[in-house]
Amino acid sequence: MRLRNKPWAVKLVNEHPESVIQDPNPEVKIDWESRFEDFSRPLEIEVGSGKGKFITTLAERYPEKNFIALELQTTAAGIILRTKLEKNLTNLQIMRADAADIDSFFAENSADKIYLNFSDPWPKSRHEKRRLTYKSFLAKYQYVLKDIGHLEFKTDNSGLFAYSLQSLNNYGMNFDFVSVDLHHEANEILDHNIETEYEHKFASKDNPIYALHATFKTKNL
Amino acid sequence: MRLRNKPWAVKLVNEHPESVIQDPNPEVKIDWESRFEDFSRPLEIEVGSGKGKFITTLAERYPEKNFIALELQTTAAGIILRTKLEKNLTNLQIMRADAADIDSFFAENSADKIYLNFSDPWPKSRHEKRRLTYKSFLAKYQYVLKDIGHLEFKTDNSGLFAYSLQSLNNYGMNFDFVSVDLHHEANEILDHNIETEYEHKFASKDNPIYALHATFKTKNL
Repeated sequence: MRLRNKPWAVKLVNEHPESVIQDPNPEVKIDWESRFEDFSRPLEIEVGSGKGKFITTLAERYPEKNFIALELQTTAAGIILRTKLEKNLTNLQIMRADAADIDSFFAENSADKIYLNFSDPWPKSRHEKRRLTYKSFLAKYQYVLKDIGHLEFKTDNSGLFAYSLQSLNNYGMNFDFVSVDLHHEANEILDHNIETEYEHKFASKDNPIYALHATFKTKNL
Repeated sequence: MRLRNKPWAVKLVNEHPESVIQDPNPEVKIDWESRFEDFSRPLEIEVGSGKGKFITTLAERYPEKNFIALELQTTAAGIILRTKLEKNLTNLQIMRADAADIDSFFAENSADKIYLNFSDPWPKSRHEKRRLTYKSFLAKYQYVLKDIGHLEFKTDNSGLFAYSLQSLNNYGMNFDFVSVDLHHEANEILDHNIETEYEHKFASKDNPIYALHATFKTKNL
């Protein structure tokens, strides 16, 4: 979702290069080791974090893991950064960059989980390649994820969900969890669901939220 | 769905052994050749036909194919039979039998397509094995279907749909079409959709209909 530009956010982002990587050169490897207290911890990446409610909640709940918010908009990155600073989330880094370059930002087999939450549906057929569950993106996630790396996907968009089910299946991924009505699942599932801002607003109107968790099968088979 | 018992239906079914096979012995192969004008035509089977609106509409629309309605209830079989006789559908046979024996009723690699429409959801975990998309049923469909045989599945039940997506994916099937809102798809898709009685009634309340078309990958790989 496009946010209105907020000058304070641009300023805040520019003042905190230790927390936000901006427009990285895809040719140069990022020194993640120096950006986290302990980079040997599990690493989870959200692609398209928006205002960051999801990833900052995760980072607060799981201090024993590292998190990276990938987000293209500076205003959104600034809002995430403000939360990070307020809550002193040393296990969260923000990256203002295009998801299409994710395989140049991270080393092969480096991440444990990738989250896609309420991604742009790009409903027109001619924009299929821009959808974050298109096969060329899946190949990049597979590269970045460890062998039993997980992809967790949520959306309210029925067209994008149906498309993604088919795309992940056709790519050979294994489904671990599927829901076509996440907010009416049993409590033990809901207890693990962290809502995004958008999800909270949307689900309160009683529209269904769709979810899919899948793993890549072992590489080199 | 359980139907009230109708004596006329039982009587009609008993009067037409040339159209309805009842309680076949799974040990004895059925002589399908003698029951169709031309058994070399494509063969499509509906598992659980209910009152048969779907399968009789198909049989009427595609006289160049053969169809079999598999249905356990005698009253339902009688209602399908009445339509068959009224419309003189010589390309439709009815089988009153349990779907669990489908692999003994048909030869290996004999069918082109299997339809599952609005199957019993069996929502309790302990009844998982009774769901028509449980892996032991998938193995039977794979046996009966030709190598590129198709399975087409529709339901209004969100739990059964999510379960089936995962079950078919985990079995290694390839998804050809997925919809989480079939009745709001584009016209070129809707033109091919034949409604069941239940679907018509249910969808008119604007509840979503879910659909999944999938193929088994080549056997012996």
